[in-house]
Amino acid sequence: MTNTAAIIGGGVIGGGWAARFLLNGWDVRVFDPDPEVERKIGEVLANARRSLPSLSDQAMPGEGQLSYHGSIAEAVAGVAYIQESVPERLDIKHSTFAAIATAADGGAIIGSSTSGFKPSELAQGAANAGQIMVCHPFNPVYLLPLIEVVPSAATSEAAVSRCKEILESVGFKPLHIKKEIDAHVADRFLEAVWREALWLVKDDIATTEEIDDAIRFGFGLRWAQMGLFETYRIAGGEAGMAHFIEQFGPALAWPWTKLMDVPELSDDLVKKIADQSDAQSGMYSIRELERIRDTNLVGMMRSLKAQNFGAGAILANHDAEKKATAGEPDLEGLVRTVTRTVPLDWTDYNGHMNEARYLTAFGDATDRLMEIVGCDAEYIASGGSYFTAETHIRHIDEVHAGAAIHIDTQVLLGAGKKMHLFHFMFHADGRLLATGEHMLIHVSLETRRASPPAPHIEAKLAAIAADHAALPVPEGAGRAVGQGR
Amino acid sequence: MTNTAAIIGGGVIGGGWAARFLLNGWDVRVFDPDPEVERKIGEVLANARRSLPSLSDQAMPGEGQLSYHGSIAEAVAGVAYIQESVPERLDIKHSTFAAIATAADGGAIIGSSTSGFKPSELAQGAANAGQIMVCHPFNPVYLLPLIEVVPSAATSEAAVSRCKEILESVGFKPLHIKKEIDAHVADRFLEAVWREALWLVKDDIATTEEIDDAIRFGFGLRWAQMGLFETYRIAGGEAGMAHFIEQFGPALAWPWTKLMDVPELSDDLVKKIADQSDAQSGMYSIRELERIRDTNLVGMMRSLKAQNFGAGAILANHDAEKKATAGEPDLEGLVRTVTRTVPLDWTDYNGHMNEARYLTAFGDATDRLMEIVGCDAEYIASGGSYFTAETHIRHIDEVHAGAAIHIDTQVLLGAGKKMHLFHFMFHADGRLLATGEHMLIHVSLETRRASPPAPHIEAKLAAIAADHAALPVPEGAGRAVGQGR
Repeated sequence: MTNTAAIIGGGVIGGGWAARFLLNGWDVRVFDPDPEVERKIGEVLANARRSLPSLSDQAMPGEGQLSYHGSIAEAVAGVAYIQESVPERLDIKHSTFAAIATAADGGAIIGSSTSGFKPSELAQGAANAGQIMVCHPFNPVYLLPLIEVVPSAATSEAAVSRCKEILESVGFKPLHIKKEIDAHVADRFLEAVWREALWLVKDDIATTEEIDDAIRFGFGLRWAQMGLFETYRIAGGEAGMAHFIEQFGPALAWPWTKLMDVPELSDDLVKKIADQSDAQSGMYSIRELERIRDTNLVGMMRSLKAQNFGAGAILANHDAEKKATAGEPDLEGLVRTVTRTVPLDWTDYNGHMNEARYLTAFGDATDRLMEIVGCDAEYIASGGSYFTAETHIRHIDEVHAGAAIHIDTQVLLGAGKKMHLFHFMFHADGRLLATGEHMLIHVSLETRRASPPAPHIEAKLAAIAADHAALPVPEGAGRAVGQGR
Repeated sequence: MTNTAAIIGGGVIGGGWAARFLLNGWDVRVFDPDPEVERKIGEVLANARRSLPSLSDQAMPGEGQLSYHGSIAEAVAGVAYIQESVPERLDIKHSTFAAIATAADGGAIIGSSTSGFKPSELAQGAANAGQIMVCHPFNPVYLLPLIEVVPSAATSEAAVSRCKEILESVGFKPLHIKKEIDAHVADRFLEAVWREALWLVKDDIATTEEIDDAIRFGFGLRWAQMGLFETYRIAGGEAGMAHFIEQFGPALAWPWTKLMDVPELSDDLVKKIADQSDAQSGMYSIRELERIRDTNLVGMMRSLKAQNFGAGAILANHDAEKKATAGEPDLEGLVRTVTRTVPLDWTDYNGHMNEARYLTAFGDATDRLMEIVGCDAEYIASGGSYFTAETHIRHIDEVHAGAAIHIDTQVLLGAGKKMHLFHFMFHADGRLLATGEHMLIHVSLETRRASPPAPHIEAKLAAIAADHAALPVPEGAGRAVGQGR
């Protein structure tokens, strides 16, 4: 049987909830009196359909059915999960919960997206308080895993368990907060940072852009993978968390923020933090944590580099400057098309370069050769390029992360629409690691069909091919998979 | 001529500075009276050598020379850049700067790693105050790009320019803070969050692990790419930043943190923020920003998935559950080895799947077939596996991000050490996108040499190969690159 969720309140947050359930195969019923609700949900769904399936390396289930309903009662009748995302006013929350109560199954889970109210406040006077809890999501709800699940004293334990199970089944990470408090946990941090940021803008210390840069080029990258305490555990080094707090503690009383209410760093509090940190991260040595952190940072920054955004744009610019100062390629003999280090994110858990990354490197070598013959970014923008039709790779030796490698390229043919290349990948120690043989065809990017290259490209390519014709035909060229030697 | 930097204070921070310069080709001189300094710097350098080259897709310069010196005067004489990272006490800072002043070139840049002091405090009474500024880094200094560059009123503009130029040349992002303030910018946020976190632990609202999860599964991922204001600009939607502040503003006065000094949200302050946000992000529509954000999040979370860490572990677990419920494979006819969506991070700027990602998908298909014949994680852990010796790919049609694809696999040979596979990649609409032909050899993971597989694997593989022998030989099998049709 298909599961059904009711989404009460269809803004950006409600739309995100709807998308998360729908794309994970649930039917979704939406109630929102806003006449624009279908357009608004549709916009969130378009974003979610574009990105959410990218999180998975397995097949997505078929999308559920989406329907819009004229009343809360109609939307919630018989559904397993109900999520309230109405405006942040307690009177509106209360009337919404009252309407839900009249029609919802007694076994349904009722979650609230409230960022500020405590579950006990939401459930005031409700006969079905056992079903009600905070399920506080983070925008974009269809991508970010965190849900703060905060039950009140009246919420049944069975309902909390069932809620967590449902949230996990659609890819969320429910974080069960055991003690209710205004704004739960995460938004208390957001609030503290937001206030400090307002002061910095008001006092002309920094602009909004400078503040964003101060976050995303530094601690933002740390917090995307480890959070606060695990990061500081590393800063404390082998001496541990208690040592870190002793170092950092006195600064707490310094006037570094506008906000000065500071808990006393008693021995008890220091021990409590150190013990909790041991329970959280004690299975790793500091050296292991450092290397986990560094591998995570490299991977995240390189993923941003592929988008030329944020910290990734810094890396891309730095590479572009290196390349600009490297000068003209030497065209005597084979063409040196790649010189680089095998990065951490190209390797498997054993540290060996992944099979597919050999083709990434050969693809880079092809791109560089194209650039050398004049098929550069400007030419490609004008509507022509080479597409790979066929590839043959021989894996000859292994290589690890951190190794310096280079690729030398022989042009076997460069005539008309065809470019036939043979790449040799070497370790810096001289070992031949792999070869790549590639047939590329020049195409019109408009028609996506074969077309002749510009004359200056054909001429340059033909000249290199003529020089290379004097070189021996590479061993392995023209070889088919499994052919005898 | 090789550039030279002097690192005064060789702890984790000084070591990070040393590594950043050294690996970018600078000679580095270290002064630290700690008898353990060489070991400490060596540990940081080992981490940096493992990870820093991974940030670049260009060749790294040769490492510079590292030397240790017995006095500050000897370390700083004649160098272009001097970085002070001594303990956070003003008297120690002052004596360090005095010693630097006696021997440093008048043109040298003198940066301080201080996280709290203002540059005017550091330069009190210094004759060379024009050379001194805060250059505040973030751990790990060899990876994170941010440096807060804070000059005092006495710092020369030429020195600030030269400093930023040097920092950029070794891959940093200098953020020039124009108005000095205690703790600069980023650490004021860290301090505010740290205080709030201490309260939450003290009051038993959340443990250190729960706090870290509340950060890294939600806003931490947002802040790694966009920071605070650009994220909230999106939350404000088309109505813009001023609208967002109006919505969020009142909550500022609610008791959501322990820390309650709140700037008045005057019309002037709201306009200032909205104007700065326009200058920062106004070149993008909200819809564009949403898609940039989502693509960044997908890429970062998938990079963490490859490490099975943080938000990536959530994704990996979710996939594992999907896979577990998918049931046994159907072995009638070709074997369905992959069913998935083309994710955003597999595509180029035009949204087409990158050449190398075809091999990623074929590699996944091979892994799945290995698993089906019994060469699973448990078997691999016992010391045997198949390695790809040779691959032939034909690119037949294009495919975009978001497309559903599947791969069907024919076993051409499964005997002795050899496994010869032919993968067909299809779009869900039935189009053949590519084929992959692969020869794999069973190896001992200990000797890294060919070895026979376990009998149960050979038997299962041979049985599938025997069934598949009744199927036609695939068109394109046995083909060499460039061979006529």
